Amino acid sequence: MFSSEDYMHMAHALQFAEKGLDTTTPNPRVGCVITRYNQVVGSGWHEQAGAAHAEINALAVAGEKARGATVYVTLEPCCHQGRTPPCVEALIRAAVARVVIAMEDPNPLMSGSGIETLKQVGIAVQSGLLQEQARALNPGFVKRMQHGKPWVRLKTAVSLDGKTALNNGQSQWISCEAARIDGHRWRARSCAILTGIGTILADDAQLTVRHISASRQPKKIIVDNRLDIPLNASVLQGEDVFIFTASTEETSKTNILEKMGTTQVIVFEGSGARVNLDRMMTTLAKLGMNEILVEAGSRLGGALIQDGLVDELIIYMAPSLLGSNAKGMFQLPELASLQHKTALNIEDVRMIGSDVRIIARL
Amino acid sequence: MFSSEDYMHMAHALQFAEKGLDTTTPNPRVGCVITRYNQVVGSGWHEQAGAAHAEINALAVAGEKARGATVYVTLEPCCHQGRTPPCVEALIRAAVARVVIAMEDPNPLMSGSGIETLKQVGIAVQSGLLQEQARALNPGFVKRMQHGKPWVRLKTAVSLDGKTALNNGQSQWISCEAARIDGHRWRARSCAILTGIGTILADDAQLTVRHISASRQPKKIIVDNRLDIPLNASVLQGEDVFIFTASTEETSKTNILEKMGTTQVIVFEGSGARVNLDRMMTTLAKLGMNEILVEAGSRLGGALIQDGLVDELIIYMAPSLLGSNAKGMFQLPELASLQHKTALNIEDVRMIGSDVRIIARL
Repeated sequence: MFSSEDYMHMAHALQFAEKGLDTTTPNPRVGCVITRYNQVVGSGWHEQAGAAHAEINALAVAGEKARGATVYVTLEPCCHQGRTPPCVEALIRAAVARVVIAMEDPNPLMSGSGIETLKQVGIAVQSGLLQEQARALNPGFVKRMQHGKPWVRLKTAVSLDGKTALNNGQSQWISCEAARIDGHRWRARSCAILTGIGTILADDAQLTVRHISASRQPKKIIVDNRLDIPLNASVLQGEDVFIFTASTEETSKTNILEKMGTTQVIVFEGSGARVNLDRMMTTLAKLGMNEILVEAGSRLGGALIQDGLVDELIIYMAPSLLGSNAKGMFQLPELASLQHKTALNIEDVRMIGSDVRIIARL
Repeated sequence: MFSSEDYMHMAHALQFAEKGLDTTTPNPRVGCVITRYNQVVGSGWHEQAGAAHAEINALAVAGEKARGATVYVTLEPCCHQGRTPPCVEALIRAAVARVVIAMEDPNPLMSGSGIETLKQVGIAVQSGLLQEQARALNPGFVKRMQHGKPWVRLKTAVSLDGKTALNNGQSQWISCEAARIDGHRWRARSCAILTGIGTILADDAQLTVRHISASRQPKKIIVDNRLDIPLNASVLQGEDVFIFTASTEETSKTNILEKMGTTQVIVFEGSGARVNLDRMMTTLAKLGMNEILVEAGSRLGGALIQDGLVDELIIYMAPSLLGSNAKGMFQLPELASLQHKTALNIEDVRMIGSDVRIIARL
């Protein structure tokens, strides 16, 4: 059984972990609190890949006080040499007495080995405290480690009658300013933003974080079956642009695009000259992408849902009606029976400005 | 200025008023609390038309203690002889000292006359305490008195992608059980339920309150342009059925229908052989209908919205996706610009079972 102090310190560690929400990619967000006689003597969090892990930052604050201390860490300490030395060694060297862990390493190859090493030297280890909360902080990292796919959020803004745009294409500012700013918060925490060539052609979308302060810009992913992207598209000005195409014929355009700095063109022929979306997601996971935010039209959105690649819907519902001929949310095939409907769970409903935001999981 | 005790007693009176939510039609819901030296000596509410008003019930409880007392009443006391004697006279006879009123009589012909009469005999009168709350309790009565139209709620159950039914018409049980029961609560408080002939033909809808206890069944209104209703329709088994039609040719069917007990056929030729919905609503107000719940298909729903006859939308949003070919919420004309969108205000958002319920006002 964990004590109420254990809960308090781990909750605190989770709050530290959250400070890395926008910056740790491709690493997970991790926080650490070190206590002695229930007094906090050190705390820290992982800020970005290549920088020190949470435990190391907390140990640096604790210094000599770490001896005999209890360490609360939201993720099992690593025992391998990565870009930084293993945390398990540092904990042993600091002679801590007890390590409390929220969740074990989700990587099936590593899970439990940090705990095992600590136990072997006589450190008391307990695991599973606020585990669900720790997992919720890193849905993408967990999914990528366990399933080799990123956590995919599909964001859309609709009217109360479920329409995203007028039949003539007009769609700007369906949602209120507060909802648009909230949308940028989801962008900021995402490893990448994914869209289709339709959105690029219609809106010349930049896919950047704006309106809020951001120390990092997410990567950009464009699904462009025939490689129709104009060379002057705004999105190509950004860094880390990945274009997925089914076209094998545009080698000269590919060359020009790849010379434009950080743009990469990846050819994945799927059926019907369309990009194989499942394979694309596997590739994105291999590229270290944990959380992907999809901001696309109804066709690409529908295709991703149909292929079972979407984990979460973020729907901003504006207090307006656009009428029956306006454009719908997702292009999904006709159902023969209600039993075949796509079922979801509603995770969160709240007002954001004058809009309703619904978060649902598939 | 009202004292905190005044607020407390009026809030109490409003809670009494709410006990008449399902039963006072066509009268308003009214509650009354009588206090002496800040102690409650009587309370009551109006239960149903023809029965005693709230003030009379509260005075009966207070008895002799009403002398010199303060009376909190949610609606200005009447000073006219209706089906029961005027409340103003009873208050004067009981020799109360002070009357606190939440809202004045919304009937422009009567408003203020009860207050005037009380003041003339030296009773202290204050008005406007929790006025908005009192109005919110009687949206239909207020609108009928002030605008000669009922308060119209349009209830619909949709998927997260804004669909009400599959293309093949399948629609039963899109929403969860808790949402369906909640829907019956809205039926129970309504003076009448309104639907179109399409719903009658497709579902043989009964339009009754079920699943919750109900001491009164709402009236039934059917918009049936060509008088297509089958004589064995379940809804005709109920009491107080009003059929609005644009057909002037079906006199023999009209005769049969009107011989079926309490069914009334009202012919209103509108444009294109369709019922004039605006005139229909005026007629329903004249028939004493305060709150009408519309449970209809997308065509009648859309037409009512377009004619500006809907005050409130009640949308149950189920956690599912039905796909792009499924049926939309409201048939509304195509817009040329987003500036012409129908704007709403979201009044309430909450989970009802596994569904989201959104209440929005037009």
